[in-house]
Amino acid sequence: MNESAADMTSLPFPFPVVTWDEGEVVLIDQTLLPDQLAWRRCATVAQLCRAIVELAVRGAPAIGVAAAYGLALAWNLARQEAGEEPERMLPAFRRYRADLAATRPTAVNLFWALDRCGGLAETMVAGGSDAAAVSAALLAEARAVRDEDVAMCRALGQAGAELLPDFGTVLTHCNAGGLATGGYGTAVGVVYAAREAGKTLRVFADETRPLLQGARLTAWELVNQGIDVTVLCDAAAATVLRQGKIDAVITGADRIAANGDAANKIGTYPLAVMAHRHDVPFYVAAPASTFDPDTATGDGIRIEERDPQEVHQWRETRTTPVGAGAWNPAFDVTPSELITAFITEHGVLRRPFDSSLATILAAAARKP
Amino acid sequence: MNESAADMTSLPFPFPVVTWDEGEVVLIDQTLLPDQLAWRRCATVAQLCRAIVELAVRGAPAIGVAAAYGLALAWNLARQEAGEEPERMLPAFRRYRADLAATRPTAVNLFWALDRCGGLAETMVAGGSDAAAVSAALLAEARAVRDEDVAMCRALGQAGAELLPDFGTVLTHCNAGGLATGGYGTAVGVVYAAREAGKTLRVFADETRPLLQGARLTAWELVNQGIDVTVLCDAAAATVLRQGKIDAVITGADRIAANGDAANKIGTYPLAVMAHRHDVPFYVAAPASTFDPDTATGDGIRIEERDPQEVHQWRETRTTPVGAGAWNPAFDVTPSELITAFITEHGVLRRPFDSSLATILAAAARKP
Repeated sequence: MNESAADMTSLPFPFPVVTWDEGEVVLIDQTLLPDQLAWRRCATVAQLCRAIVELAVRGAPAIGVAAAYGLALAWNLARQEAGEEPERMLPAFRRYRADLAATRPTAVNLFWALDRCGGLAETMVAGGSDAAAVSAALLAEARAVRDEDVAMCRALGQAGAELLPDFGTVLTHCNAGGLATGGYGTAVGVVYAAREAGKTLRVFADETRPLLQGARLTAWELVNQGIDVTVLCDAAAATVLRQGKIDAVITGADRIAANGDAANKIGTYPLAVMAHRHDVPFYVAAPASTFDPDTATGDGIRIEERDPQEVHQWRETRTTPVGAGAWNPAFDVTPSELITAFITEHGVLRRPFDSSLATILAAAARKP
Repeated sequence: MNESAADMTSLPFPFPVVTWDEGEVVLIDQTLLPDQLAWRRCATVAQLCRAIVELAVRGAPAIGVAAAYGLALAWNLARQEAGEEPERMLPAFRRYRADLAATRPTAVNLFWALDRCGGLAETMVAGGSDAAAVSAALLAEARAVRDEDVAMCRALGQAGAELLPDFGTVLTHCNAGGLATGGYGTAVGVVYAAREAGKTLRVFADETRPLLQGARLTAWELVNQGIDVTVLCDAAAATVLRQGKIDAVITGADRIAANGDAANKIGTYPLAVMAHRHDVPFYVAAPASTFDPDTATGDGIRIEERDPQEVHQWRETRTTPVGAGAWNPAFDVTPSELITAFITEHGVLRRPFDSSLATILAAAARKP
């Protein structure tokens, strides 16, 4: 199933989160974890869109990888539907690209990957490439997106690892681990890199309601890696911070505005407020592709509201009475003044952010 | 089943949370809500202790009522075991009292009720009363504890209702409603009283992990009362406060130190921090019996840590992987500087608390 198994053996997380097999996009079905490790095969773009919407694949970098493979799939389907003439394939290809773009509005990596791979296809078609060449190029580009993601996460992790003391304790929220990326992780990648550097760490993982990515996914990754992990309810994080048990809070991000305001899983903002109150450093670990130079501040980030059923029930068990409403914002925005530093593949970016973020934003602005 | 049904008909919550029937303590089994409304009968003190530990009955005032009925039960059992000689019954009675005291260390009302009713029995025995007279007096005292609780909640609710605007929106945490008291509620009682005063209110209820008292119990009460209720994940409360949708946060308390630091369900402290940050008034609704003059500050409040299984699973569904730890503090302490005012049966107590709390603390210190 794994089209580049050799790449994976060196990961802390030794199997592909998203890959390509026999013309299909194949991904770990994260909705089934931690009970089952099973893969979901997507033979159509609609199936892949559903996998993204249902969070079978989630985490901004992993969504980017899935979208990149999704465009390789989209091109192949357009070939089947419209024949071998690239110009005639473009309308279908663009419809598939729009379908993928509509899945998760907050994850900037989704749009970044669609622009990169979609732009490549458009340029090749305009330059006279044939359909088979574009197929091969899109698949190679998707692999590159994933391989670059892994390399980026490693570099990010190494930069962040230096911030952590040996025998330190990290608090994290949601899952910004191998499952959220090409296989290594951002916030949790920092923990893996610190371990590779010889440090012994312990992790507290917010369970992260409503979908329990912390309890289900972060804890699963860390248990598999033999790293001591303790799950706590989101509302208990304030108490563990107050008790002085935490050396650093590290979270991921789904989109970072030009001023450093960072959108991430609901609950990140109050966590940052509590870390600030108790003088615990609050780090956001995210690759350059998460920074959005076109969004000036957090006020400009559109926050996805998800199905209230996620609050009303957990798997098959309804928790609220019939007749009650529910409200389910998926993200919140942490203002930059609460963020101690950003951990990126280009190093640790400290305050003042208007100067430290300038290079990364300029690079992002130059991307396709 | 209800030994004072007439009292209940005027409540917003028209059936007894805790009552006495044919020599047994009978209580709503709150672990089954919102799926089932069913009563649990406790024929032994051990059964009642288990009901308290398992949170079949919970909420500091309701635990106080249950403990009061529990001592009536304890006396009757001591009579069966030791005969009709009151002096010979006391050792068994005191053991039962100690068993009840050991169930929930944080709820001050538990100790208050045990002191009140236990002290009555001890005084009567010392004064030469016979076993039957003590039985009758303990049952009457338990009824009085409950009836006083309902009257207290009504007075508290009326005091608090004046703080709320018509067409206002209240955010609450956990369940400090009829189910947590003799039948009217403290924090939610304020909403009931505001409605009785002609105001239309809407409630946002934090679901309150790990046991979801907000989703299961507060939402159930409010739906039954025809009051608009929206459940949200605990981590989303910061966002609804930031969006300016909330006029007031009202929570209950399990124990309030002499300086106004208030222990309540885990998650209350970060909620108070977020309310303060967004200039939303944060009210603690609690009867005088919740104030503990013997505890100077919140640092002196012992916080119950509950079974980690409550974090590992929801009903039968395990949410964490085998091998992960879990940490489950049941309460946190909100420092008094984050509390706008206390809503009590003696009125609204505003800052500075060293003067406004003086009378209520002096009254509590005079209690048995």
